[in-house]
Formats: sequence, C-alpha cells, structure tokens
Amino acid sequence: MSKLEDIVSLCKRRGFIFPGSDVYGGFAGTWDFGPLGVTLKKKIMDEWWKYFVENREDIYGIDAAILMNPKTWEASGHTATFADPLVECKECKSRFRADKIADGINESVTTEEFLATHTKCPVCGKENWGPIRKFNMMFTTHVGAVLPDDDEKLASQNIAYLRPETAQGIFTNYKNVIDTIYPDLPFGLAQQGKAFRNEISPRDFILRDRECSQMEIEYFVAPDTWEENFEIMRKAQHDFLENTVMLPKENIHELEVPKEDRAHYSKRTIDFMFDYPGGEQELMGLAYRTDFDLQNIARESGKSMDYRDKKTNQVFVPHVIEPSIGVERLVLAILSTAYTEDEINGEKRIVLKLPENLAPFKFCVSPLLKNKPELVAKAKEVYTKLRQKYNYVTWDDSGNIGKRYRKQDEIGTPKCIVIDFDTLEDNTVTVRDRDTTEQIRVKIDNL
Amino acid sequence: MSKLEDIVSLCKRRGFIFPGSDVYGGFAGTWDFGPLGVTLKKKIMDEWWKYFVENREDIYGIDAAILMNPKTWEASGHTATFADPLVECKECKSRFRADKIADGINESVTTEEFLATHTKCPVCGKENWGPIRKFNMMFTTHVGAVLPDDDEKLASQNIAYLRPETAQGIFTNYKNVIDTIYPDLPFGLAQQGKAFRNEISPRDFILRDRECSQMEIEYFVAPDTWEENFEIMRKAQHDFLENTVMLPKENIHELEVPKEDRAHYSKRTIDFMFDYPGGEQELMGLAYRTDFDLQNIARESGKSMDYRDKKTNQVFVPHVIEPSIGVERLVLAILSTAYTEDEINGEKRIVLKLPENLAPFKFCVSPLLKNKPELVAKAKEVYTKLRQKYNYVTWDDSGNIGKRYRKQDEIGTPKCIVIDFDTLEDNTVTVRDRDTTEQIRVKIDNL
Repeated sequence: MSKLEDIVSLCKRRGFIFPGSDVYGGFAGTWDFGPLGVTLKKKIMDEWWKYFVENREDIYGIDAAILMNPKTWEASGHTATFADPLVECKECKSRFRADKIADGINESVTTEEFLATHTKCPVCGKENWGPIRKFNMMFTTHVGAVLPDDDEKLASQNIAYLRPETAQGIFTNYKNVIDTIYPDLPFGLAQQGKAFRNEISPRDFILRDRECSQMEIEYFVAPDTWEENFEIMRKAQHDFLENTVMLPKENIHELEVPKEDRAHYSKRTIDFMFDYPGGEQELMGLAYRTDFDLQNIARESGKSMDYRDKKTNQVFVPHVIEPSIGVERLVLAILSTAYTEDEINGEKRIVLKLPENLAPFKFCVSPLLKNKPELVAKAKEVYTKLRQKYNYVTWDDSGNIGKRYRKQDEIGTPKCIVIDFDTLEDNTVTVRDRDTTEQIRVKIDNL
Repeated sequence: MSKLEDIVSLCKRRGFIFPGSDVYGGFAGTWDFGPLGVTLKKKIMDEWWKYFVENREDIYGIDAAILMNPKTWEASGHTATFADPLVECKECKSRFRADKIADGINESVTTEEFLATHTKCPVCGKENWGPIRKFNMMFTTHVGAVLPDDDEKLASQNIAYLRPETAQGIFTNYKNVIDTIYPDLPFGLAQQGKAFRNEISPRDFILRDRECSQMEIEYFVAPDTWEENFEIMRKAQHDFLENTVMLPKENIHELEVPKEDRAHYSKRTIDFMFDYPGGEQELMGLAYRTDFDLQNIARESGKSMDYRDKKTNQVFVPHVIEPSIGVERLVLAILSTAYTEDEINGEKRIVLKLPENLAPFKFCVSPLLKNKPELVAKAKEVYTKLRQKYNYVTWDDSGNIGKRYRKQDEIGTPKCIVIDFDTLEDNTVTVRDRDTTEQIRVKIDNL
C-alpha cells in the first residue's frame, strides 16, 4: 500500500474519516468525518479562527448563506468561465476531463489539440472522441416553487447555484460591513464554510472532493499598500502553518505563479505547495485580487464600493489580498505529517504524532487490569479528576495494556496514564509518552 | 414597528444579521451573519457542543457531507413524502402553500377541500385555482458530468439532493461508528451542520429560512429503555436552554404532540415552544423515532444494523431519541429575550441583555476623550492588558462617551471600562454596567 492508502485505511479503521454515504456504497467525492475526525477538524478550524480573527483586531468574521443571488456568479465570472474541458467517448459514452487524461494540454485545450494527442479512452480503450465541451463546475438547483413539468423559461428564472467558493459571500457583505462598523483600513473579513465543485472525476481522498470546507480571508487595503500587506499576510500564513498546526517548514514550498498561469484578475499569486504522500500539491493560495471583485459588484449592483479614508479623506475602492485554505487539504497535510511507522523493541507500530493542541484526546486513562475492581475504581477516580481539569480525556479498558497503547498510538493520544498495583500503595501512576514510548512514574497530584 | 421588526432592524444596523445577498436586493429565505452575529452564533454552537459532546462521555461527534447518496432519501421517505401542498392561481400564475393561505386546512388538504374554503388569491384577488399538487421541498441538483442537453434519463441517474435534515447524516454513519469505536449503549451521535428546505414562502426573519443550521443528536438506546432515556434527554434540553443559554423558563412551553399530528414513525414527540415576539413558535423538538430509520437503512442497504449488547449478548436494533434544534431559531429566541427598551434618566435606550457567555464582547475599553493623547495612551495600555487575559475585548473611541454607551448597550457588551483623568492620578477606571448603567471605580489591577 502507498502511504496515502495507509492513511485512508487508518482514518476509516479508527473513525477519523469515512467515505460519504458509506452504507450505500458511497457517493463519489464526498467524505464524512467520524468521532475523532470531527474533533481534529474542529480543533484545526478553531485554531485558525483564534489566530486570524479572535487574536487580531483587524479581521472580522462573516458567515454567509451557501445559496446566493445568481447575480453573484454573473458578476464574479463563474457563470461564464468556471468550467472544465469535458470530452465524451463516442463508443462507451464515458466522460472525462480532457486535460486529465491527455498529457501536455491544459484547461483551455481545443478539440483539435485534444485529438492530436491520440489519447485512448481509459474505459474502453477506443479512440473515438466527441468535441471538447465546457462543463461548468457549479452545482445548479432551483429555488422556489418550480415543478418538474414547468417550462424551461420559468425554471431558468429560478436557477441558483451552490457557491463554488466562500470568497463571494465575503465580497457581497463588504458594503454592509462598511455601513455598520466602518473599520479602519486595512481590515479583513474571514469566513469558514462549505463550498461545492462538481468535479468530473473527484480523486486523491479528501484532496479533490466535491464538497469542501474553506477558510478564507479577504483583506482590504489601500491600493498603494498592497505589496507590504501581501508580505504581512504571507508571513502570517507561514506562522500559522508552521507554529500553530506545526507543519514542517521544509515540506512547504512557495510557488510564485507566473503571469500566464494566474487568474486574469490576479496581479500576484503564491501557491503554498505541500509535500503530500503522493507528491507536491497545493495546500493553500495567497492572491492579490486587486479591486476586481468589488468593481464587478459595483457594476452589477449599481452600488458604490467606495471607502473614505478616515484620516486622509481620500475616496477609493480598496484592493484585496486573499489567503485561502481548504480545511480538508490542511487535515490531510497534518495527518500525513503525523503518520509514522516505526519499530519499538522489534515490534512494528503505527503512530500518529499529532501536535498536542490538535490530538483528539490529550490523555488516555486506563487500569492495568480490567478485572481488578480496586484498579478500575482508582483509575475511574483519576479519570474523573482529569476530566474536571481538561477536556479531551478518554477512558480505555479494552483488551490488554499493549493493545490499548497501540490503539492510542494510532489515534495520536500524547500520554497514556496507567493505574497499577503500585498506585494503590504510593499514589503514583505510569505516564507513557506516545512518541518515545518512555514510561515515567508521576504522583497523581502532579498530573 | 413590531418587536420582531425592531430586532431585525437592530440586527442589520449593528452587524448581527444581514439579508442574504443584500447588495443584489437579497435572495428570499437566506440570511448572512455579520461580524457580531458570527460571534454570537459561534458561541451558541460551541456551548451546545461543549454541553452535549465534550462534557459528556456518551455522545460523539459526526460531520457528514451535505450531498448524500440519493438512496438515503428513498429509505427515509423524503423523496416520496417531504412535500407541501402547492396551489397555483390560474389568473396571475402566483403559487402558494395551500395550507398557509386558507384557514382550517392542513398539509394533507385535497383540491376539493381547498376549493371549498373559497380562498381568494392573495396577489390578484381572484378565485380561480388549479389543483393541489405535492411540491417536494428538497433542493435538487445533478452530480457528475451532466450537460444541459442530456436526455432526462441520463440526468435523472445523476440526481442528488441538498440534505433536508442533518439526522440522516448521522443514521448512515451508525454502522461505521459501531464497527470502529463500538460504544456502550446508550450512546449518542451529535452533528452541527446546514440543512436546506425549499420553502414555498420563506418568512418570519430567520425562523423559516431556506438554509438553516441544525444541531441534532440521535441517542441510541435499548428498545425497552426508551422511556427513561426520553426523560433524561428532556431534562438535558431544559437544562441547556435555561442554564447555559439562559432562556427564561416561563417562555418555554412543552407541547405533547398528539398521535394524529406526529410523524408516522414517532411514538412520542414533544415540541419545545418558545414565546417569540410574534407569538408561540417551535424552538426545538424531542422525538422518539423508534428503530424506524435504522430499519429503513437496513432494508435499503442490505446491511445489518444490529447491536450486540456487551454485557447481555442480546442482539437488537437500537431505538432512537432525537433532540433537534435549529441554530437560527435559538439565535432569535436569545435575541428576543435580550432585546429591551427602557428609560434611563428620562432618556430612552435599546439594550441587548445577552448572557455574559454569549455577548460578542465581554468588555469595551474607551478613553473618556479621544483628543487627549495621555488618556488614549493609558486606555490602550488597559485594553492591551485585558486582551492578553480575555478574548472578546473591544476598543471604542468613536463619538462621545454617551454615544459609545448607547452603541455598546445595543450590541450587548456587559461592561464598559472608561479611562479618565482620575485614572492618570490613582490608576482606577470607571466600570459601567450594561443592565443597571451603574458606574463604579475599580483599580486597574483588580479588573
């Protein structure tokens, strides 16, 4: 098995991440977080919120609806251009993303260019292709009382999309925030929430799913200060990634995106690439979006996006620096950093070396033997005491102590506390370290 | 203005809740949370999670995808029966929920019954109705490479729904949880997340929106223990509502739902009604769902939902107690409890008497005069010191002190700390109480 497969397997085995709708054979591109995964994901999202919103004075939260007025996506350009090149095999009717099944072409491939690659159908092996067509990746739905037999015109008036990014939920609230709290510039609006992309072929576990959680900031700045603020945001991202969720610095690589590969509105983009088990992939992006989005909204809505500087009285449309990270991509970066196979006294083990602030449990409390009522009672006492002091304390009296250690190693619990017969004598317990497996005796009162 | 309108106005004015897609004239049935609203909502959701998941040993978290295998909704009955009675005016083509525009009929009204009410069209005033039709409230979309000109058969194979409730995201994961962590019975699975209902006529602010956040627990119990566990859950709900988010006991009314009004699978349901500004409305529900959902999944998936009791070795399908609460309904209950208009020294004011654990800010720090650099410097010092100790401290030097108090009252900040000239002499500050407006002098070191 590849390391990625090992991680997928551990995630399912231990209740971190299950395939979505698993009981019905799954549902492509969706994943469900189980008991341990929810805790891990929530801790990561809370750390981000604390770092970028609560601990800062210049960034405020927003939580916009997933269903937005379709004008949003006209203005942003998504209706016209958020599309992948789709190609259909005329023999077996299978459909593919053209740029993913042929080498050396990109998203703007033409039918001629694709045919020239002489790609064979990955399903039936034939080479008989239809034309390249643009497939819009936004999920479409209808809002309001539209019935299946309504004519197309009525139905199309009620069309809506699942938002393909959280960013527009921020931009559309810029004016409301200016009108209500009028923050000093620079200021940011931060949002955590779901976004949906109808990927033709979802793949790579939670790296390319159809439904993902994003954490985004739109940081509004005076136009002539964008470079310094870009730099400030760049450093903040590194600090968060390396010192809060503890990703190894050496596995993060900045990719300065060249002009021809940047979105047309961006004057500078850095992709933060990460060494995933399957190779380097994008972890997050940092983009200078100019005033592209606010100008689009001003045009489409007819409303002014002007900001009047409180000190200089200058009036302008702010420019925007956008750090954007996918929660699932970050979860996988953290899991694959933590996932370790090593050997302890000749025995192989799997251990998840999660940082202490992210591990689902901080401590596991355990009686050495489960059939000794006096040990169980004492262990319960220690367990109850610790739970009053800390969240995230778990109890484990399954199997024997060796099995428990292996389980707690696999779910990343930093310390196992074991109550044995000595405890009854001298009120000390064994504290075992997850990473070193070293055991020390500690007084209960000093835990 | 009615009290509800006052609250809607305050929410918009102060940045709690904006109409969704406001800049484009809105989007019916959607609402966006602004900077203060996000904090309030997050604190409420975190309190719930802490109360029901982190502080308990028997309830685990789940976070399932919004897009689920459509078999989910076949099994649950939503595809067939999650529908409202829709009626169209033949004159002006307006569409309505029949049971909402006519008196004395319910959701299962027939065309004959509706016509007998002689209701006039609320839009054009005529009485010329089409037949009653069942309108399914699930939002429909297509997953995968479906193109607009595909035939209906292909499109229908790729149909998917936005989940109309979070509950099924829990039930579909029951087996995975049993297979991975095998908890003792009774145990619960808790989820917070979005659910979508295509209401024909969304209304009443955030009470009946098309997109809402739910907090649900499915509590799995041995069949013969359902009554005692129902009682335990009933008490826990009251305790959370009355002692954590501090809703007044006297505004919560239990409604024992009679058999004929219960969902067909429920053997007992209590609706927790709340005295909203517009009258009594449902705040949350507590339902005994029997083994209805797990049996449906067993039938549809062909997989066993059996649980083997660890002590007795008895094998059975657990029964379920479900407490379910809509976050927005709870937000509105809390806001309308807090919203107060009173008179202080002959001057009218609006004050939001939010509980301290939910107020967006705990403290506001302010210099008495903003044009005295020595006061501003001292106030900044106090502000910085407090921020190191607490989250949720805000700074305000806008307008004069009277205006600041009125603003902080409106956003519910419990204490305002003001630095004046005496502070420079004796290191004491004025601490003003939001509810009583009483002011006391406190040593900075004792804050």
